Amino acid sequence: MRVEADIDGGWTIGGKPNGGYLLAMMGRAAAADTDFPDVVAASAHYLHSPDPGPVTIVTEVLRAGRSASQVRARLEQDGRPCVEALVTASRLPAHSAPYWDGGVPVVDIPPRERCVKVPPHGPSGIEVALLEQVDIRLDPRTAGFMDGRPAGVGELRGWLALPGDAPFDPAWLLFAVDAFPPGTFDVELSGWVPTLELTAYVRARPAPGPVQVLQRARLIEGQRVDEACFVWDATGRLVAQATQLAGIRLGSS
Amino acid sequence: MRVEADIDGGWTIGGKPNGGYLLAMMGRAAAADTDFPDVVAASAHYLHSPDPGPVTIVTEVLRAGRSASQVRARLEQDGRPCVEALVTASRLPAHSAPYWDGGVPVVDIPPRERCVKVPPHGPSGIEVALLEQVDIRLDPRTAGFMDGRPAGVGELRGWLALPGDAPFDPAWLLFAVDAFPPGTFDVELSGWVPTLELTAYVRARPAPGPVQVLQRARLIEGQRVDEACFVWDATGRLVAQATQLAGIRLGSS
Repeated sequence: MRVEADIDGGWTIGGKPNGGYLLAMMGRAAAADTDFPDVVAASAHYLHSPDPGPVTIVTEVLRAGRSASQVRARLEQDGRPCVEALVTASRLPAHSAPYWDGGVPVVDIPPRERCVKVPPHGPSGIEVALLEQVDIRLDPRTAGFMDGRPAGVGELRGWLALPGDAPFDPAWLLFAVDAFPPGTFDVELSGWVPTLELTAYVRARPAPGPVQVLQRARLIEGQRVDEACFVWDATGRLVAQATQLAGIRLGSS
Repeated sequence: MRVEADIDGGWTIGGKPNGGYLLAMMGRAAAADTDFPDVVAASAHYLHSPDPGPVTIVTEVLRAGRSASQVRARLEQDGRPCVEALVTASRLPAHSAPYWDGGVPVVDIPPRERCVKVPPHGPSGIEVALLEQVDIRLDPRTAGFMDGRPAGVGELRGWLALPGDAPFDPAWLLFAVDAFPPGTFDVELSGWVPTLELTAYVRARPAPGPVQVLQRARLIEGQRVDEACFVWDATGRLVAQATQLAGIRLGSS
């Protein structure tokens, strides 16, 4: 299937579209090519950052199954491949509950009104137009980087709301897992941290309202960093998880 | 590029090839189609489990870059797609060191000789032929499931050695991240836990010898579980990380 789409200049960081925003567009197009409504797993490798403007998403169903289907999706601009992704679509149960969640990090994120809003013009010197669309509020204990005092833990925690507080659906969760500033900002400020690979799992349909996010950096080496992300809905239910590998200009190559 | 390959019946679990073993084959074929020697990121969605025997790996370079190239790889058997993967290949520095590793779990794995070997005929009732090829030895504190006494933490820790103690290269690390029994065995025994999606990052070239592995289950819900995996070489250096989503028959759907 071919879908014509448009990258909105408002969803950019330093003029380049956010990786999770692109994956959300691709995940939505991929699921629409199957009999299933929900993206449950999506993996993307980023080839070339497109500019705001028209793009084409080409999807191909790899397997149509009874309980899940797999789709390949490519985002192109002017015929040039920009992002390649694999998507597994399925139907998330309307009502489910964790059978066991003993391996999920336990975090204590303060109420949203006690968190600190991240402005579009932050300390990294990059214009984050994205932050004029969405509302990110950080736990004050992880917001020190905004005043030049990172905690050194590599974690950002807080709340994410869509424009107009629109509800998150599974495809929007693919954006949520890449919406926060990098966890490395809590270690040391750097320039742009471009996503090289992003994999997300959607585990449940979120309740309406903003979501809670934990963005955690793990290892910086060879000018690459990996980060883990966990997303809970407003009721505290884990709804999505992700991992990403990104480029970073810290340390030697 | 088309590569003819053979799935060895010795690398199976209940007669079906291990997902990491398949990804290692595909990663090796994908890197060979580029100017770079090392897989640094690989993501696979599993469509249909092939049988032991001949398969074809079809690779297509998506982007050939100066510092990395991206490749799509498909594993087919009798013309039927079985695994679809995206691979980023690059050159890992010969000598590098972590710039910051504050987000990596700290684990204390006992020396290999104090660990407990996992036999091919284990308590799950599935014949794990793979365990006649490789040597997995578990920290006794995480081996309770073999005696019907899981610790309930969802973690398995221990050592993994290849046949003849062959050295791990980056492609073999794609196997290492899926070689251990599922971390869920430390919660509750189940039947086969088939991998649906597997993403691995290779961060450094390992020193010769066996590797240390942490396999951790996070959330079981809707008959799916996600697991994280960390691999250190014998010197204690983190060399690979992975996440996977797998099917599991525990709880309700």
